[in-house]
Amino acid sequence: MSNELKRGLEGVLVAESDLSHVDGEVGKLVYRGYDIEELARGASYEEVLHLLWHGSLPTRAELEAFSDDLAAERAVDDEVLSTVRTLADASERPMAALRTAVSMLSAYDGESGDVLAEGAAITAKVPTILAAFERARQGEPPVAPDPDLSHAGNFLYMLTGTEPDDVSEETFDMALTLHADHGLNASTFTALVIGSTMADVYSGVTGGIGALSGSLHGGANQDVMEMLREVDDSGKDPAEWAADAREEGRRIPGFGHRVYKVKDPRANILEEKLRDLADASGDRKWLEYTTAIESYLTEEGLVEKGIAPNVDFYSGSVYDAMGIPMDLYTPIFAMSRVGGWVAHVHEYREDNRLIRPRARYTGPETAEFVPLEDR
Amino acid sequence: MSNELKRGLEGVLVAESDLSHVDGEVGKLVYRGYDIEELARGASYEEVLHLLWHGSLPTRAELEAFSDDLAAERAVDDEVLSTVRTLADASERPMAALRTAVSMLSAYDGESGDVLAEGAAITAKVPTILAAFERARQGEPPVAPDPDLSHAGNFLYMLTGTEPDDVSEETFDMALTLHADHGLNASTFTALVIGSTMADVYSGVTGGIGALSGSLHGGANQDVMEMLREVDDSGKDPAEWAADAREEGRRIPGFGHRVYKVKDPRANILEEKLRDLADASGDRKWLEYTTAIESYLTEEGLVEKGIAPNVDFYSGSVYDAMGIPMDLYTPIFAMSRVGGWVAHVHEYREDNRLIRPRARYTGPETAEFVPLEDR
Repeated sequence: MSNELKRGLEGVLVAESDLSHVDGEVGKLVYRGYDIEELARGASYEEVLHLLWHGSLPTRAELEAFSDDLAAERAVDDEVLSTVRTLADASERPMAALRTAVSMLSAYDGESGDVLAEGAAITAKVPTILAAFERARQGEPPVAPDPDLSHAGNFLYMLTGTEPDDVSEETFDMALTLHADHGLNASTFTALVIGSTMADVYSGVTGGIGALSGSLHGGANQDVMEMLREVDDSGKDPAEWAADAREEGRRIPGFGHRVYKVKDPRANILEEKLRDLADASGDRKWLEYTTAIESYLTEEGLVEKGIAPNVDFYSGSVYDAMGIPMDLYTPIFAMSRVGGWVAHVHEYREDNRLIRPRARYTGPETAEFVPLEDR
Repeated sequence: MSNELKRGLEGVLVAESDLSHVDGEVGKLVYRGYDIEELARGASYEEVLHLLWHGSLPTRAELEAFSDDLAAERAVDDEVLSTVRTLADASERPMAALRTAVSMLSAYDGESGDVLAEGAAITAKVPTILAAFERARQGEPPVAPDPDLSHAGNFLYMLTGTEPDDVSEETFDMALTLHADHGLNASTFTALVIGSTMADVYSGVTGGIGALSGSLHGGANQDVMEMLREVDDSGKDPAEWAADAREEGRRIPGFGHRVYKVKDPRANILEEKLRDLADASGDRKWLEYTTAIESYLTEEGLVEKGIAPNVDFYSGSVYDAMGIPMDLYTPIFAMSRVGGWVAHVHEYREDNRLIRPRARYTGPETAEFVPLEDR
């Protein structure tokens, strides 16, 4: 036992994993060796789930069976939908509502004790819960899931009541793939710690949602969108706004990452999709703003120093272009990352060990107890 | 960065803490230097919460203000009680029901952003939720909290509808104190990881409940009670039953602990209370069984080797003697430990750092992507 304090557990290796690897120096992310760019462009989120959960990209027959099983799990019990409505009526924050609704699912899904079965049921139901919550906030009834649509397409359909166009569905599917896994980030680690006690997957995912709701974890893409709106309201040129913000000592959201020292590979792909969406709609404002801010920070030499655009810098504008409200960005992150949480809990169970570190005790060794009457 | 894998983070120091210290070699547990035995005998659970959260045992005036504030938070909104009833109707497991109901509280308590304010609201409401859940399972309406009763006494009152006798209230209060904190166990660590993202305390406690629900963490006192019933059903002498169980290679629940090498100090205190309860009721069966099993294992030299009675070996029989159903034992553990979860999140926030370890990537470095049509 070392006596060294490992603050934040930075650099501490807690497990071995075949699932994903980030090379922050060159800006490379792989899932089981596959480059994230190739997966995002060439594979659906369902294929990526199969890769993460079952170890391989599926054949067409495997994919059909897997997608059908997942689609069959999309419907959420009326009692849970009723609680979702109650939470919407109480103006609950979307991440907190999702945390409660996912926790509640276990009452109706039973205890299979099988990580992947529980994980599939939750992964399939998260979009249904989120769409129902958003519609309840708008005073609309939920839209029942359509088993003939893809995971991404069905969510957009349940959210709006209309089948999405191809660019939107494809872009959203890409965003799900890009966010599915990223090593042992804080929410994945939370799911792992909970899973290591042999608790069910509902507990692990509920904990993961809680961790992702923290401002130091999820939520940065919402910060980026708020910044873009602030730029717009200021009437300034975006580069000028960024220069002023730097002068005031403000951090510009969407830049820099604990692991990446260069531009996040996920940002490149989303930037391209933002262009596609802008071309399709003719609305190029957020694209122009983000490009201008990135150019300014590049010219200032910050990007070269590692303050490079990360995935959050583009995902917000992409979701905004699809008409998704800002406070659903982090829940959509959860909708994707649940695949990674389940994959890590499943993998860790193969050689499970309770995760239980120690704290260095810094309190008094002894204290003399004085009864209440004498205090 | 070391390349050594820290499986289960065993022995890894992740934080400094003034809250509690376990000396497993001599069987000593302190909260901020105070011996657990003195606290259990001399202080109420409310005094212990004040100690953990505010750093000192309260004066009488401080205790009155603190207890009043806590009692004022006991009532739970109708929407949450309605969900608790729905969960009871669905035969949800008590820990899962508690996880969902605590998560749901955040919709009605608002976001104070203050760890201790949120923590007090949750700590005050957990007994109300649990008692309402148990009564709903029995087809009974909830009993409203009585602000004039202690935290322990009010729970027993809400559970049964009758004010508890002194021995029961005192014993239950002791059990709450004994379980309030125990270093960075898996559920406390879960709350800390979630809290380190700056998520709210509802997220942290919900995650802690999830972790505690795992069979490798909470739940051992229920295993002990199941064992005692099995002994009873077998018709064998308890020592003979234990000898047979060992011969079959079965692990005897309630013995051994990752940290304690001698008898757990909490077990000594609960053993004494079990005697008091047996004296009061005249029913000495579980006391005789546990004593006989402990004596047998002592004579066999196991206790000397560190396979010594832990807190779970006595708490189950104590709760049973108070008429509490077996599947509430772990939720009662949560009702107490929530005080420790809140204390640790509060303490960690003073010098917060996101908890984010790494996994050693063991998957392929590269894999050639083959599109679906060619697989």
